[in-house]
Amino acid sequence: MQVQDTPLVRKLGAFVALSDPELEILGRMHGRPRSFPAGVDMVHEGQVKRSAYVLASGWVCSYKTVAGGGRQIVDFQVPGDFLGLRSLLFRTADHNIEPVTRVEASEVLISELIDGFTRAPRLATAVLWAASRDEAMVVEHLVSIGRRNAQERTAHFLLELGARLTLVGLGTQEGYACPLSQYLLADALGLSAVHINRVLRELREAGLMSFQKGRVEFHDFAGLVALADFDLAYLDHDGPLLK
Amino acid sequence: MQVQDTPLVRKLGAFVALSDPELEILGRMHGRPRSFPAGVDMVHEGQVKRSAYVLASGWVCSYKTVAGGGRQIVDFQVPGDFLGLRSLLFRTADHNIEPVTRVEASEVLISELIDGFTRAPRLATAVLWAASRDEAMVVEHLVSIGRRNAQERTAHFLLELGARLTLVGLGTQEGYACPLSQYLLADALGLSAVHINRVLRELREAGLMSFQKGRVEFHDFAGLVALADFDLAYLDHDGPLLK
Repeated sequence: MQVQDTPLVRKLGAFVALSDPELEILGRMHGRPRSFPAGVDMVHEGQVKRSAYVLASGWVCSYKTVAGGGRQIVDFQVPGDFLGLRSLLFRTADHNIEPVTRVEASEVLISELIDGFTRAPRLATAVLWAASRDEAMVVEHLVSIGRRNAQERTAHFLLELGARLTLVGLGTQEGYACPLSQYLLADALGLSAVHINRVLRELREAGLMSFQKGRVEFHDFAGLVALADFDLAYLDHDGPLLK
Repeated sequence: MQVQDTPLVRKLGAFVALSDPELEILGRMHGRPRSFPAGVDMVHEGQVKRSAYVLASGWVCSYKTVAGGGRQIVDFQVPGDFLGLRSLLFRTADHNIEPVTRVEASEVLISELIDGFTRAPRLATAVLWAASRDEAMVVEHLVSIGRRNAQERTAHFLLELGARLTLVGLGTQEGYACPLSQYLLADALGLSAVHINRVLRELREAGLMSFQKGRVEFHDFAGLVALADFDLAYLDHDGPLLK
């Protein structure tokens, strides 16, 4: 794959118009590709060896567990996302990262990141933008669990995934392929799998969307956006701010 | 105040051993000091003029509102924290920032940030570290609301604030001055003010901590840490990783 076509470049290109030297540095970040099977943690909480990855294909989830054994999924990562960027800058990983599907990802070393920032400081700003966007999504998940009802938070979440996938060429306003089980959705949204099932049925019967056979279909995109009060601004997708 | 004594430098110094040129750039980030009164938004959601600040003194909260009028406080910021870093890199602010007390803050321009990164790339990594740490705190708030009971989440939150304030010289394991009302705590923790009041009484009666007259006092720090299952690792305070 040409570096211009990688999901990471498509994503960062939404913030900064990338120059050839910047593209070359990003290309090198794809230089250590590895495969990981579904269901086996790539990074676990408390791990001292710091590793970060750029996800090239497949889906992963990042989660934390609490003392009683409960688990909270913080977010899912899709192609073009960094995995474990916090782990790279912290002494120990503060969360777990588990592939939801088989994934292809390239390891990014901290030395490589700092070297890239030295040679192309605008890339540092672009990576900070991507990290800020990741934080903005976690903020929305906090607002959802704290203040949105089950229908609103489910719709908001599936719209957010759609917007992220569209940015990297893997979705449209019609829908997207989605490998998530109702159990995974439940752990992310603070609902039970039974409750998720009921909410998805309600959304389908209302003619807004369906999620069946690994595919999310938006039947009434505007109606779903209105239900969820979904405002794309926090994903900042309006084209390069830095020319 | 000497730049070495500013909360921002104390905080970033926990990640990178700062050189004189780096200190000079951080000093310049304090070059546009302004005062803001309590209770008036400094930044509001949807605002197009992008402004970020470094907080020199006082406390602020960042929050989002939802369609029904509810509000979720995402975090509080204390001296040394950036305010609105996401706003700076996004086209529109995605949250509101309101001073809890009178605050002193210096505006940071995006041009200044990029210029600083160009001249001192390690600063870019340090700012990315600070942003990652901000995200790690939001993640903990999500886990708290999703998976921790009222006592655990209140204790976790007040321990986190203590650790952050200790890093910048404004707290110890004995306690810290805290201007937050029970209403603000309630909006952050997804509890009612009445519930917060009861939880604080329970924690006091258990001999763990008290929060009275604007001061949090830890009476049994280790016991409180055990109750909350509080693991400091996500704040990454172990001294400079980059020498």
